[in-house]
Amino acid sequence: MTAAVDNRWDGLIVGAALATLDAEAGYGAIEDGALGWHDGRLVFVGPRAALADTPDVVAKQVVDAGGGWITPGLVDCHTHLVFAGDRAGEFEQRLQGASYEQIARAGGGIVSSVRATRAASEDELLAQSLPRARALLADGVTTIEIKSGYGLDYDNERKMLRVARRIGEVLGVGVRTTFLGAHALPPEFSGNADGYIDAVCAWLPRLHDEGLVDAVDAFCERIGFDAAQTRRVFDAARALGLPVKLHADQLSDGHGAALVAGFDGLSADHVEHTSPEGVRAMAEHGTVAVLLPGAFHVLRETKLPPLDAFRAHQVPMAVATDCNPGTSPLQSLRLAMSLACTHFKLTPEEALRGATVHGARALGLRDRGVLRMGARADFVHWAIARPAELCYWLGGALAQSIFVGGQRLA
Amino acid sequence: MTAAVDNRWDGLIVGAALATLDAEAGYGAIEDGALGWHDGRLVFVGPRAALADTPDVVAKQVVDAGGGWITPGLVDCHTHLVFAGDRAGEFEQRLQGASYEQIARAGGGIVSSVRATRAASEDELLAQSLPRARALLADGVTTIEIKSGYGLDYDNERKMLRVARRIGEVLGVGVRTTFLGAHALPPEFSGNADGYIDAVCAWLPRLHDEGLVDAVDAFCERIGFDAAQTRRVFDAARALGLPVKLHADQLSDGHGAALVAGFDGLSADHVEHTSPEGVRAMAEHGTVAVLLPGAFHVLRETKLPPLDAFRAHQVPMAVATDCNPGTSPLQSLRLAMSLACTHFKLTPEEALRGATVHGARALGLRDRGVLRMGARADFVHWAIARPAELCYWLGGALAQSIFVGGQRLA
Ligand SMILES: [Zn+2]
Ligand SMILES: [Zn+2]
Repeated sequence: MTAAVDNRWDGLIVGAALATLDAEAGYGAIEDGALGWHDGRLVFVGPRAALADTPDVVAKQVVDAGGGWITPGLVDCHTHLVFAGDRAGEFEQRLQGASYEQIARAGGGIVSSVRATRAASEDELLAQSLPRARALLADGVTTIEIKSGYGLDYDNERKMLRVARRIGEVLGVGVRTTFLGAHALPPEFSGNADGYIDAVCAWLPRLHDEGLVDAVDAFCERIGFDAAQTRRVFDAARALGLPVKLHADQLSDGHGAALVAGFDGLSADHVEHTSPEGVRAMAEHGTVAVLLPGAFHVLRETKLPPLDAFRAHQVPMAVATDCNPGTSPLQSLRLAMSLACTHFKLTPEEALRGATVHGARALGLRDRGVLRMGARADFVHWAIARPAELCYWLGGALAQSIFVGGQRLA
Repeated sequence: MTAAVDNRWDGLIVGAALATLDAEAGYGAIEDGALGWHDGRLVFVGPRAALADTPDVVAKQVVDAGGGWITPGLVDCHTHLVFAGDRAGEFEQRLQGASYEQIARAGGGIVSSVRATRAASEDELLAQSLPRARALLADGVTTIEIKSGYGLDYDNERKMLRVARRIGEVLGVGVRTTFLGAHALPPEFSGNADGYIDAVCAWLPRLHDEGLVDAVDAFCERIGFDAAQTRRVFDAARALGLPVKLHADQLSDGHGAALVAGFDGLSADHVEHTSPEGVRAMAEHGTVAVLLPGAFHVLRETKLPPLDAFRAHQVPMAVATDCNPGTSPLQSLRLAMSLACTHFKLTPEEALRGATVHGARALGLRDRGVLRMGARADFVHWAIARPAELCYWLGGALAQSIFVGGQRLA
């Protein structure tokens, strides 16, 4: 059997430098670059001069970027952006002098997000969440991880995951869903955390059957769930062949990083208090360290993640927004990159790697986060003179055009 | 003589809450508000129900906001946004471990911005600066102060001020220019700061004659100019009837706040190290404290401005971006408000007041920064449920529509 070969590409962009991130170190820069794509995949990544080697190519659209840089589309590998209501009222009360305890007693905290999220219809939840996803996208994000965890019962966790999927469809961006039933104990299970974990483990196969779950997460912390409870959730995930990740060692060293690494987990997230043993376990199992400088900033934390240990053990570091209504109301991944540089002293290159290739790896995705032949044609053209500007500017509209799977979005 | 009375308004917006800021304390909130304007001024500010008292009014356009809040247009009262080049390269070198000294020896620091700004034509400088002004505007700023200070010779200081004026014309926003010749010592005056101040004082009347100067500023600091030099610049300003402001007490207590207050200055800016005496002098002379949390954040400073003393002495506190290529590459005033809440513990109300009515006052402007009959029709309609959201969200596209002098910009 032979097929007719169409040697035309869907598109070709020239006239910009490329930061391919397709190298062990450095930006993988190509000064006068060219990027070709077809059927949603990159078919050419190289210097413009090398295009002459493929003389027969005709692209349906040729874009002259007129300067600037092209990077892989950014990957925000940790968000809780589907929720109803906001917690700006609490934010204000705290700055007016109210204590966390006073706010909790007045019905604030995560419970208020659960209440609002449960009360919202699926369409309302979508309408409230879309602007946040749009804001991420406008600043260069083409793949977004979205967690459940404000429903805390079957119907409402399902509703959140359905909304996450719909965001991907409406905006035409990549969405990866993470089931985070074990985020907090809902009021109806008060005093019965083990009973709640039973319920979470029972919901998971049903949600997975509907195609709503790409990964499974838990909040392993003194104020969350303990190691044994976390393991039960992970066992349920493993039984379904689902990858796991963990909110680990944010407020104290609960040995969460080692726990999730022991399950060959995709990532340990936050990891401010992770021990040397935890770092070694992550290195051994290829578990990514997801740094969340937004929460660090908002909570005015001072304990830095073990960055030098991650570097020494070659644990990949990702950077994400953690977009959530309580501790990180952050609607820009570039801003998270900037905060990672300021608070964690990441280099701009580490931050960009963290928001592209390492972010993708924290989601188990090898087909994006780099500019490489065969990868998805997800890329952003930025009005910048050097890649470090992505971390340097706080705010600003730097994205000139954004392509997802070869389709221009903005 | 009688004139025909046109009782139609140019516009009326209803269906949103108002944060008028037209009160000693609080947001000056009006829940179901209405805002009418004519000939660029507000002609109605009140509850929608009170519109019935003016039954003959017909507006040429009536906008139903459909929820959200309307605030005065934001006033960014301290920026250096006209410059060429950027300093992202230095930012990156520092994070890679280079010291300030190494960077300075390699031609970095403010000198590099001076070099790039001098080398740029007026049109190039405009083209490079416009995106930053546009970014501020998109996030709700309707009046921008812009300083010179990267030219440091007559022609280039003039070029910067002309570009600042052109930004106002091109974008249709309010621009106030500040002559900051005494920003740094240019290489050609090395070792001769007094001679440079002679030159600055000689340029000022000529620039003022051209209508390029709304106020005069200086950098009074051990690494800038001393008190005697600053006084000479201020004397030159006073001779022309121009108001003054000062970069004061940022890195050490140089008694700058008291100095500028002694000239009935509009504002003392930075003021981290201002002494109790300085605060009292500011209170006595009505000098505004301009807080610049962007530079505080980027430089990872720890010395807080004397906030409680400002509050106790009722010194108005403004908040501004300080948008500049070295210490505060900040392109969003909302982000500065957020940083003021996080780093300085300002309440969201103080931050909003600082970016509206107090920002206007730091520029000597009484006709904006509030929603009040007779004030300029500069206002922003935000997609928020409460004003605190303006400080709570980091990033995000909250501005739904922006009006400057009654003209809709976005
Ligand atoms: Zn999280
Ligand atoms: Zn300044």
